[in-house]
Amino acid sequence: MKNYIGLPESVSKIISHFFAACFPLHFGQYNRFIDEERKREVETTKVMEALADAAAYFLDDENQIKELITEVRKRLPDIRKVIDTDIQAAYEGDPAAKSTDEIILSYPGFRAISVHRLAHELYLLKLPVVPRMLSEEMHSVTGIDIHPGATIGNYFFIDHGTGVVIGETTTIGEHVKLYQHVTLGAKSFEANEDGTLVKGLKRHPDIGDRVVIYAGATILGGNTRIGDGAVIGGNTWITSSVDPGETVTIRIYDHNKGVREEDV
Amino acid sequence: MKNYIGLPESVSKIISHFFAACFPLHFGQYNRFIDEERKREVETTKVMEALADAAAYFLDDENQIKELITEVRKRLPDIRKVIDTDIQAAYEGDPAAKSTDEIILSYPGFRAISVHRLAHELYLLKLPVVPRMLSEEMHSVTGIDIHPGATIGNYFFIDHGTGVVIGETTTIGEHVKLYQHVTLGAKSFEANEDGTLVKGLKRHPDIGDRVVIYAGATILGGNTRIGDGAVIGGNTWITSSVDPGETVTIRIYDHNKGVREEDV
Amino acid sequence: MKNYIGLPESVSKIISHFFAACFPLHFGQYNRFIDEERKREVETTKVMEALADAAAYFLDDENQIKELITEVRKRLPDIRKVIDTDIQAAYEGDPAAKSTDEIILSYPGFRAISVHRLAHELYLLKLPVVPRMLSEEMHSVTGIDIHPGATIGNYFFIDHGTGVVIGETTTIGEHVKLYQHVTLGAKSFEANEDGTLVKGLKRHPDIGDRVVIYAGATILGGNTRIGDGAVIGGNTWITSSVDPGETVTIRIYDHNKGVREEDV
Amino acid sequence: MKNYIGLPESVSKIISHFFAACFPLHFGQYNRFIDEERKREVETTKVMEALADAAAYFLDDENQIKELITEVRKRLPDIRKVIDTDIQAAYEGDPAAKSTDEIILSYPGFRAISVHRLAHELYLLKLPVVPRMLSEEMHSVTGIDIHPGATIGNYFFIDHGTGVVIGETTTIGEHVKLYQHVTLGAKSFEANEDGTLVKGLKRHPDIGDRVVIYAGATILGGNTRIGDGAVIGGNTWITSSVDPGETVTIRIYDHNKGVREEDV
Amino acid sequence: MKNYIGLPESVSKIISHFFAACFPLHFGQYNRFIDEERKREVETTKVMEALADAAAYFLDDENQIKELITEVRKRLPDIRKVIDTDIQAAYEGDPAAKSTDEIILSYPGFRAISVHRLAHELYLLKLPVVPRMLSEEMHSVTGIDIHPGATIGNYFFIDHGTGVVIGETTTIGEHVKLYQHVTLGAKSFEANEDGTLVKGLKRHPDIGDRVVIYAGATILGGNTRIGDGAVIGGNTWITSSVDPGETVTIRIYDHNKGVREEDV
Amino acid sequence: MKNYIGLPESVSKIISHFFAACFPLHFGQYNRFIDEERKREVETTKVMEALADAAAYFLDDENQIKELITEVRKRLPDIRKVIDTDIQAAYEGDPAAKSTDEIILSYPGFRAISVHRLAHELYLLKLPVVPRMLSEEMHSVTGIDIHPGATIGNYFFIDHGTGVVIGETTTIGEHVKLYQHVTLGAKSFEANEDGTLVKGLKRHPDIGDRVVIYAGATILGGNTRIGDGAVIGGNTWITSSVDPGETVTIRIYDHNKGVREEDV
Repeated sequence: MKNYIGLPESVSKIISHFFAACFPLHFGQYNRFIDEERKREVETTKVMEALADAAAYFLDDENQIKELITEVRKRLPDIRKVIDTDIQAAYEGDPAAKSTDEIILSYPGFRAISVHRLAHELYLLKLPVVPRMLSEEMHSVTGIDIHPGATIGNYFFIDHGTGVVIGETTTIGEHVKLYQHVTLGAKSFEANEDGTLVKGLKRHPDIGDRVVIYAGATILGGNTRIGDGAVIGGNTWITSSVDPGETVTIRIYDHNKGVREEDV
Repeated sequence: MKNYIGLPESVSKIISHFFAACFPLHFGQYNRFIDEERKREVETTKVMEALADAAAYFLDDENQIKELITEVRKRLPDIRKVIDTDIQAAYEGDPAAKSTDEIILSYPGFRAISVHRLAHELYLLKLPVVPRMLSEEMHSVTGIDIHPGATIGNYFFIDHGTGVVIGETTTIGEHVKLYQHVTLGAKSFEANEDGTLVKGLKRHPDIGDRVVIYAGATILGGNTRIGDGAVIGGNTWITSSVDPGETVTIRIYDHNKGVREEDV
Repeated sequence: MKNYIGLPESVSKIISHFFAACFPLHFGQYNRFIDEERKREVETTKVMEALADAAAYFLDDENQIKELITEVRKRLPDIRKVIDTDIQAAYEGDPAAKSTDEIILSYPGFRAISVHRLAHELYLLKLPVVPRMLSEEMHSVTGIDIHPGATIGNYFFIDHGTGVVIGETTTIGEHVKLYQHVTLGAKSFEANEDGTLVKGLKRHPDIGDRVVIYAGATILGGNTRIGDGAVIGGNTWITSSVDPGETVTIRIYDHNKGVREEDV
Repeated sequence: MKNYIGLPESVSKIISHFFAACFPLHFGQYNRFIDEERKREVETTKVMEALADAAAYFLDDENQIKELITEVRKRLPDIRKVIDTDIQAAYEGDPAAKSTDEIILSYPGFRAISVHRLAHELYLLKLPVVPRMLSEEMHSVTGIDIHPGATIGNYFFIDHGTGVVIGETTTIGEHVKLYQHVTLGAKSFEANEDGTLVKGLKRHPDIGDRVVIYAGATILGGNTRIGDGAVIGGNTWITSSVDPGETVTIRIYDHNKGVREEDV
Repeated sequence: MKNYIGLPESVSKIISHFFAACFPLHFGQYNRFIDEERKREVETTKVMEALADAAAYFLDDENQIKELITEVRKRLPDIRKVIDTDIQAAYEGDPAAKSTDEIILSYPGFRAISVHRLAHELYLLKLPVVPRMLSEEMHSVTGIDIHPGATIGNYFFIDHGTGVVIGETTTIGEHVKLYQHVTLGAKSFEANEDGTLVKGLKRHPDIGDRVVIYAGATILGGNTRIGDGAVIGGNTWITSSVDPGETVTIRIYDHNKGVREEDV
Repeated sequence: MKNYIGLPESVSKIISHFFAACFPLHFGQYNRFIDEERKREVETTKVMEALADAAAYFLDDENQIKELITEVRKRLPDIRKVIDTDIQAAYEGDPAAKSTDEIILSYPGFRAISVHRLAHELYLLKLPVVPRMLSEEMHSVTGIDIHPGATIGNYFFIDHGTGVVIGETTTIGEHVKLYQHVTLGAKSFEANEDGTLVKGLKRHPDIGDRVVIYAGATILGGNTRIGDGAVIGGNTWITSSVDPGETVTIRIYDHNKGVREEDV
C-alpha cells in the first residue's frame, strides 16, 4: 500500500519557499549583503525541490517530475505578475489598508489567493492531490477555501475571508471583490441515475467582471451566472443567474415594525 | 493554585499520535521495514501516554487515570471503524473527491470528525476539559467547532466546514451532510429565574437521518427537531422543528424585479 | 527597500509571552519554586523585548521605541483587568462553560479578545502595521477578525467565533455578546469623487450595551447604530439603525407550508 | 551517484532510542501510567525503524534489511545484560561514583561502551559504515573513539575517557579498566610492497583480563599482548608485549635533583 | 523506581541561562531597548527555574529546594566576579587572545571553568548528581572534565583543554595555568581491605600558586603536592610531591644520536 | 557596548552550509530532481549569507563585508580542491577506511581540516574572531583544535584526533600525518620585559613534508623544526629541532626487567 509519510511537510515547504521567492524582503531568512536576484533564485530552487519531493508521491516516472518542475519554474514570473494585480486590488478595495507592505504582511486574502495562483497552475498540469493540499493548508491558516481548479481573473480581492468557499469549476472575472463567508458552490441534484454523484461536471457558478459579493452570500450551481457589475447582498441564497448590473438582497423584519428597508 | 503548564502540548500530542495510530501510512514517521500492526501499537501507546499526561492535570487518583487509558485503548478499534464510515460518506458526498487518500490528506471535515470521535468517548468517560481542548485545537485548524458532547451517527460528512458549530447536546442521525457555516446551536432564553444561565439542559437540536443542511443555515433550540430526509436551505434561521422530508429556504429580492425563485 | 525579515517571528513572540505574562499558571514554562510575581515580571520583559524588536521595523527613532515600550508596560495591568471582565462574561454567557480554567485553556473568543486588548493600545499609540499583524495572527488561529482600531467595552464575549469580523471604526458597548460569522462592517459607497475609496472615515457601526447578535448577522455602515438591549437575529442583513430593545430577524419559508414562525 | 541525505539523522535516532529502550526511566519521553515493558517495546521498535532507515542506504535487498533488524532485535536483550556488567564495573572502579543512577546519567565511559555494544553487533552482521557512524557520534559526544570492530569483554570501564582510542582489531579481556588518552592502536609499518597500506590485517593489541591502563598510555601493534593483571603506567609507549602481572612506567627527571621515583 | 525523564533537559537549561545571565550581550536573546539589569534578572530567574526543576528529582522537600535556589541566587554575584578573574588570566596567559570578547565567544577553557564555578557551589550545597551532570555536559562540549568537588583558586586558565581531567578532591591555588590532556587524578591503591574501593578519601593532588602544567602531564595521588611556582613538563608522570620552584620533565631519545636536551 | 547576540548561530550556519556546498549528496536537504550544480549554488549562497551576518558584528563598513564575501566565494573552488587531497590522504593513510564515503560521513579529522581550510582563508582576509569561532566549533565536535592561523599543506591527515592542538603560527608541509593528542604548541618563555606575554611572534613549530607524529607527542617552540620524513614517537616532548629522517621516542621501564626496547 502506498506510503505518504513526509508529504505534508513537503507541501508546507512549497508554500513557505514560494512566499520567500515572491517576496524575499518580507519572508524568508536573507540578509542585505546578498543581492536580491540571487535570493529569488535560491528560494525558487527550494520551491522546486519541495515540489519534486511532493510530486514523487504521485508520479512514478522521474522524467515527468523533471518536466513538471521545469514547466512550473518557467511559469513563476507570470504567476508573480498576477499576484501584483491582486495586491493592487486589495490596496484600492480596502479603506483600512495603509500600505502594500501591510497587505503582504497581514492580509489573509492576499495569502490565500497567492497560493491559489500557484496551485491552479499545478492543477492545470494535472499533478494529483498536491494542489488540493496546498489550498487546504491555506484554508487552515486563513479560513479561505479555494479549490485549485477555480479559474480566477486578475485584480481579485477577498476581504477578511473566513468561511469563503470557491468550488472547483467556478470561473471569476476581473476586478471581483468578495467578503467573508461567501460561497460559490454546487447545487445538490447533480447525481447519477444510480444515486451516486456525478464527478467532473460543471457544478459551480460563473462570476462576471467587477462583481461585488457581500458577506455570507451563497451562490450555487453550474448554470448560475452573475452578470458584470452585479451586486450580491449579504446572506443571500442564489441558485439562478443574476443579470448584469442588478442588486439582490434579503429582507429583514422588525418584530414590532415589520419589513425594514436595507440597502447595500 | 493549579498549574496547567505543559497541558496544551500533551493535548497536541494526543491528536498527532491518534492520526498516526489510525493512518500509519499517511501520518507519522514510519518505514516499510516495520510491519503495520507494530506501527499501530507504537502510536497507540503514545496516544495513551499523552492522554495520561493530560488527564493527570484533572484526575488526582492514579487508578482513575489507569482505568481511563485502559478503557480508551479498548474502544479505539471501534472508533477507527466509525471513522471509516465518515471517509466513505465524504467520498460519496463530494464530486470533487478523486480518492480516499485525497480525503485523508486534505479534507478538514474528515480531520474534525475523526478527532471528535475520540473526544466524544473521553467526554462520555467524564474526563474534564481535555475533550474540549481537543475539539478546540481542531476548531483552530479547520474552523469546525464540534462540542465533544455532541452525539453524531455514522457516515457523517462536513464539506468545507469553516464556521460550522455543533453544540453540546446536539444529536445527529446517520448519513447527514453539512456544509460550511452551519450552526446547530442554543436559543437564548434558557436562563434561571435569577438571570444566570441554566447549565446542563438539553439546549441544541436533534437532526434526523439523511438530512442535508446547506451553507450558513442556523438551527437553534433543544426542542427543535429536523425530520429524516429534510433539506435545509442556505442562510436560513430555524428555531422550531421541520417535518421529515420538508425543504425550507429564505427568499431573495431583486431590487428591480422583486422576489426571485431559488431552489436548493 | 525596506526589509521585514524576522518581523513575523517577533509578532508571534509578543503573543505567546503576553499570554504567559497574563496567565503564568496556564501558559509558559514556569515552575512552582519561582514566585508568581517574578514570573509575571520575566514574561512581561519578554513581551517588551519582542515588541521593541517589532517596532524597530517601523520606528526609526530609538527614543520613540523606548517611550512606546515604557508606555505599554505601564498600561499592561489595566489591560489585564479588562480581560478579567471578558472571562467573567464568557463564564456567565455560555452554559457549556464549566470553569474559568476551561475558558482560558480552550475558548477562541477569549484568546482573540485578549490579544485585541493589547493590539488596540498599540493602535492608539500609533504603532504601524504591528497591531494589525497581531490581530491577523489571532484571526488565523481563531477565525475571529477584530481590527485593532475597534473600540470595545468591558464584559465582551464572542461564542465560537469563526468568521466574526469587526471593522476598524466599530464601537461596542458593555456586556455585548456575539456569535460566530457576525460581521460589523462597512457599506460599499464610501468613495471619493474620483472613484477611489475614502480612507479614514467612520465606516463601521456602533453597538450599544447589552446587545446580542446571533450567528451570521451582518451589520454595516458608519451611521448604523444598534440600540441598547437590541437582539439581532441570525443571518440578518442590517444597513440602518435598530432602536433600543428591538428584535430583528429574517423570515423562513417551508416550500409546502409557506412562511414559518421563528423566534430568537 | 549515491545520496546519503538523511543518513546522519537516522544514525542519531538509533542512539537516542537505544538509550531509551535500555533505560526507559532515565531517557526518553515516558510517563508512569504506561507499564515499563510496553515502553521498552515502543522504543525498541523505534530503534529498529531508524536502523532500517540507515541500513537502506547501503543494502539494496529489502530482505537483507528485514533479516538484519530481526536479528538485532533478537540480540538486544543480551546486549542489555552486558551493559549491566559495565555499569557494575564503573560503580566498583570509581570511588567518586555515588550511585548507578549517577553513572547512567553522567558517565561518558558508560555512554561510549553502551553504544559500542550495539555497534559491534552491527559490525559482526557486516552492515557497512553505519556502525562506524554510531561510534563516531559517541566519539564526538564523549571524546572516546572505539572502533566498532573491537572485541571487548564484560565488566569494561573507561574513566573520564577523553582521547581514548581503541582500534578495529583490538581484543580486550574481562574486568579491564582504562583511563583517559589511552591508545590501543596500530604500528606504522604494516604496508604492502607497493607502499600502500594493507587493509584487513590484525593491527591492534590484545589486552588480557584485569589489566589497568593509566592515562596517556599508548599501546601499539597486532602482536603486542598485555598479559593478565599487568599495570601500564601513564604516558607510556608500548610496542611489544608485556608479561602477565608486570608493571611498566616512564621515568621522570627533576632538573635539579635527577631521576625521580614514581610508582603507579 | 525513580524516574529521571526530563532531567537532562533541565540541566542543559541551567547552563544556557547561566551564560546568558553572566554575559547578556554575548549569549541569549535580548535587544538594546531593554536595560541590562532587567536582562540579567530575567535570565537569572530562568537559571533558578531550571535549577529547581533539576533539584526536584533528588530533593523531596519543597522547602529544601526553595532554600537551595535562594542561596544560589545570593551567591551568583560572587561567582560572576571569580569568572572575571579567569577571563583576565586567559587574556594574559594566551598570546593568541586578541580581546576578552574572543575569549568569551570562543575559548573552551573559559566555558568549562565558568560552569565549574557554579557546579562547585551546588556541590558544596550537597545537591546530588546535578553538579556532576553540569560538569559532564561541559566535558562533552569542551573535552575538559572538572569534577564539581574540585577546589580551584582565582585566575585559573586552561588552554585548549581537550583531555584535561581534574579529580574530586583536587585543590588548586591562584594563577595556575594548565594545558590540554593534563590529569590531576587518583592513584590506584586506595582500596578497602575487602578489595572494594574506599569512597570519600582525599585522593587527588594539591597544586600550589603560579604553577604551570604542560600538555599531557599526569599528576596523581592525595598526598602529592606541587609546590608554588613549579613547572611540570609535558607528558610527565608524577605520583609524589614536587618542591616549590622545581621543573620536571621526561627525557627523549634520538634513535641515532641518543638523549636529547629539551627544556620547557 | 557591543552586542553579539545571534553570532554563534551564524557561525554554526556557515559550517553546516559549507559542508552541504562541498558535499551536496552527503549533507543538506536536497533531492534528486534538482541538478547538482544548482544545489551547490544554493548552498554556497547560504554560506555567504551566514558569513555576511557573522562579519557584520565586526566590520562596520558594508562595502568591506561585500568585498569579503565576494573574495571568499571566489576562493571556494580552490578550497574544495585541497579538501579532496585531504580525503585522499585519509583513505591512503588509514587501513580501516573502506571507502571515501565512510571518511566523509564519519571521520572527525576530515571534518576538522575541511573547516580549517575555510577558516584559514578568513584569517588571511583578516576577519576578526569568526575564524576562531569556526575552529572552536569544530574543536567541540571533534576534539581537534586547529588555530585558523596555522598554515597546512595538502594531503593532511589527522587520525582519531581527539586532543590534537595546532597553534597559530605553525607551518606544516605536505603529506603529513598526525595521531590523537599531538600538540604543536608554544614554549613558555616568549614574554615582554614587563612580564606580559608578547603577542604576534612566531611561537609554534615548523613541520616538514612526509612527517609522521604519533599519539601524545608534544612539539613546542617557534624555532623548532621537524625535518622532512622524520618520525616522532608517541608521548614525546620536543622543544628543539629534529633532523630530517630522524626517529625520536621515549624510553619505557619494566619495574622488574628494566629498560624495554620499543620501536615505532
